[in-house]
Amino acid sequence: MNQLEYAADNKVSPLVKRIASVEGLPVKRLLSYIRDGRAVIPLNKKHRISRPCGIGYGLRTKVNANIGASPDKVNLKGEIEKLNTCVKYGADTVMDLSVGGNLPEIRKELLRACPLPFGTVPVYEMAVLAQDKRGDLFKFTPEDMLEVLQRQAEEGVDFFTIHAGATKKSLSALKKHPRVMNIVSRGGAILAGWMRRHKKENPFYEFYDKILDIAYKYDITLSLGDALRPGSIFDASDSAQIAELKILGGLAMRARKRKVQVIIEGPGHVPLDQIEKNILLEKKFCRGAPFYVLGPLVTDVAAGYDQISGAIGGALAAAYGADFLCYLTPSEHLRHPSLDDVREGVIASRIAAHAADLVKRNKTALGWDREMSLARAKRNWKKQIRLSIDPEKAERYRASSLPSNLGVCTMCGKYCSIKLGG
Amino acid sequence: MNQLEYAADNKVSPLVKRIASVEGLPVKRLLSYIRDGRAVIPLNKKHRISRPCGIGYGLRTKVNANIGASPDKVNLKGEIEKLNTCVKYGADTVMDLSVGGNLPEIRKELLRACPLPFGTVPVYEMAVLAQDKRGDLFKFTPEDMLEVLQRQAEEGVDFFTIHAGATKKSLSALKKHPRVMNIVSRGGAILAGWMRRHKKENPFYEFYDKILDIAYKYDITLSLGDALRPGSIFDASDSAQIAELKILGGLAMRARKRKVQVIIEGPGHVPLDQIEKNILLEKKFCRGAPFYVLGPLVTDVAAGYDQISGAIGGALAAAYGADFLCYLTPSEHLRHPSLDDVREGVIASRIAAHAADLVKRNKTALGWDREMSLARAKRNWKKQIRLSIDPEKAERYRASSLPSNLGVCTMCGKYCSIKLGG
Repeated sequence: MNQLEYAADNKVSPLVKRIASVEGLPVKRLLSYIRDGRAVIPLNKKHRISRPCGIGYGLRTKVNANIGASPDKVNLKGEIEKLNTCVKYGADTVMDLSVGGNLPEIRKELLRACPLPFGTVPVYEMAVLAQDKRGDLFKFTPEDMLEVLQRQAEEGVDFFTIHAGATKKSLSALKKHPRVMNIVSRGGAILAGWMRRHKKENPFYEFYDKILDIAYKYDITLSLGDALRPGSIFDASDSAQIAELKILGGLAMRARKRKVQVIIEGPGHVPLDQIEKNILLEKKFCRGAPFYVLGPLVTDVAAGYDQISGAIGGALAAAYGADFLCYLTPSEHLRHPSLDDVREGVIASRIAAHAADLVKRNKTALGWDREMSLARAKRNWKKQIRLSIDPEKAERYRASSLPSNLGVCTMCGKYCSIKLGG
Repeated sequence: MNQLEYAADNKVSPLVKRIASVEGLPVKRLLSYIRDGRAVIPLNKKHRISRPCGIGYGLRTKVNANIGASPDKVNLKGEIEKLNTCVKYGADTVMDLSVGGNLPEIRKELLRACPLPFGTVPVYEMAVLAQDKRGDLFKFTPEDMLEVLQRQAEEGVDFFTIHAGATKKSLSALKKHPRVMNIVSRGGAILAGWMRRHKKENPFYEFYDKILDIAYKYDITLSLGDALRPGSIFDASDSAQIAELKILGGLAMRARKRKVQVIIEGPGHVPLDQIEKNILLEKKFCRGAPFYVLGPLVTDVAAGYDQISGAIGGALAAAYGADFLCYLTPSEHLRHPSLDDVREGVIASRIAAHAADLVKRNKTALGWDREMSLARAKRNWKKQIRLSIDPEKAERYRASSLPSNLGVCTMCGKYCSIKLGG
């Protein structure tokens, strides 16, 4: 039985029991969120992992980290190291976005090493296979698509990004109202190119029922991709983006009927004052489906520091109700990320998610801040370091600059406000 | 004449003309903001600098960077390097918060090297002099206070943080409603300690008129410090903080009457959902006076990455109407900042300020993002790097990872969404 079937029958699966315990939620409440489609547990029936998680309403805000090879950067060992870095620094899920090297081989090794829910964007493998076998990335067929999906499902992938909303209809909105940036989603650009070339409807949309069949069989969660997300703040919330979101809402309803769990991907580049609206529209059009936002980036100019731009947008998005944050690294817009970039990205997104969890009144999050402030009030440095979001960095900082009086730090010394007793 | 006197007479000073031009504002409009107290230009009459700036309503959001020696870290050369780093990476103002070494000497050298408006917290010098001369940091008198203020004014300091709101009344609120953290403002803790020791009212409050006289004489802008700002998210917006803010509002009115420009300092540690309220209360109690926020930090646990926690809070605060962001560095809560920490802090705050300026519809800010997105759409890497918030880092990132096809980057290679034509 799938998680949605368990929930429909009001039956508590072992997985739901476990996640409810991790989240500190009554089991029945989590079950009702899953039944309503407001929460999902992305886990392929064929997959065994040590750290499954739930994503959605009432749960801790989750963080995804993207890794994977690119044509210029194929290094399986390096990607495994990145995966381990994601796990070490507290990512909740990982996506393999490889578009370079031997994709099935990389995926197999990453899947083997990954204790977290594992996602992919199957259109990448379709395009890379077409490029490698036929010398043209657009030379794939709907049958190739289903074959790739079936293969990845069998391998144990837990969630698929499916760009099914980039349809003739939503793309026509893009033509009617041109953007500063056009399509910036890699999968979206591949599919739009395929549709132009073959003069056909998006196969993920046209054969969506067949995709649902595969997802149903393995209880794979579908992450409905936002192929038309804005790539510049000037394109945010435009008619193409909203047209696609409405289509995703319809597709989400079809998935729920088929007992397939579904989440919705969201922008992108969005100015601060449009973030709330974006969350509310998603929750409305997709009837409360978990919202998985890519940032949002609140400015276009922070290349080199996009983890910060993304943390600003992500914190606000999650505070307004987004459930799942895709990290951004300092290398966004510039290069394939390094190991340090991955760490910086995971930590920045975790800060954003945690800041939002405080206003979502998540008890674990509130307890963490309280414990930290109590340790700070007592100038208990060991405890403060242990409770820091990245204890190793906090320890390194303190060790690099030890004060002559160990009860304070080198910022204020004897003029420490806490020591002065306030 | 002081800037407020010029404005009252509807006269355009050369400084107002210059700032209006830098901001791209009609001169008369800027003049009206200054007259109303909604904007200030912190510049001591005795001070000549190459990069003065305005702070307040209708102007670009400004960023302050704190530098200065501490008892454990006295290194004048290092502080000069930090100053140069602040200037290079785009801070708008600098504050010397030294509490170690020879304060007048350090201040003299920093003032000499600084092209930006320069601020201090005079109570630090009062406490350090008392400690050095009398072996007790609380052994200073109201006369000592006025002497330090007069001396710093004569040296050319452009704005003073004055913790005049930590009065018997506001401190009693703190006693009535104890906090997780007590007072975390260094100046506030010194003054509260002094008041306890001497059983007297806060001298900055008691002799405020004399302080106004000095500020008036030099046209020094008073930055009314928030001695009772929250140091934990659990203390945010509490009765002590609000009691102090109301007192600051009264003091701001008295300053305006005396033709002294004034800004208000604000929190601190504040959860995301209390930031808007904090801005609105300040604007209400202080009748639109520019709001200078220290962060706010949206969680207590991000030690090592507090520039990110501060950027999240700062962006939101500025989007709601804060005018001036005090940076935070990764070393906050851990150590005296390094040169790298200073750079990271300035850049993070600039991202926050800029993200807010986009929603404030600042034309320069919007133009910058538009130009960047146009360069990105054309895959013009040189221009993208030049337009990045830190061109050197962007250049380093790209150079470290050059793609085989120079028209793209190593993230996507031939699968670049922009190259695919979207």
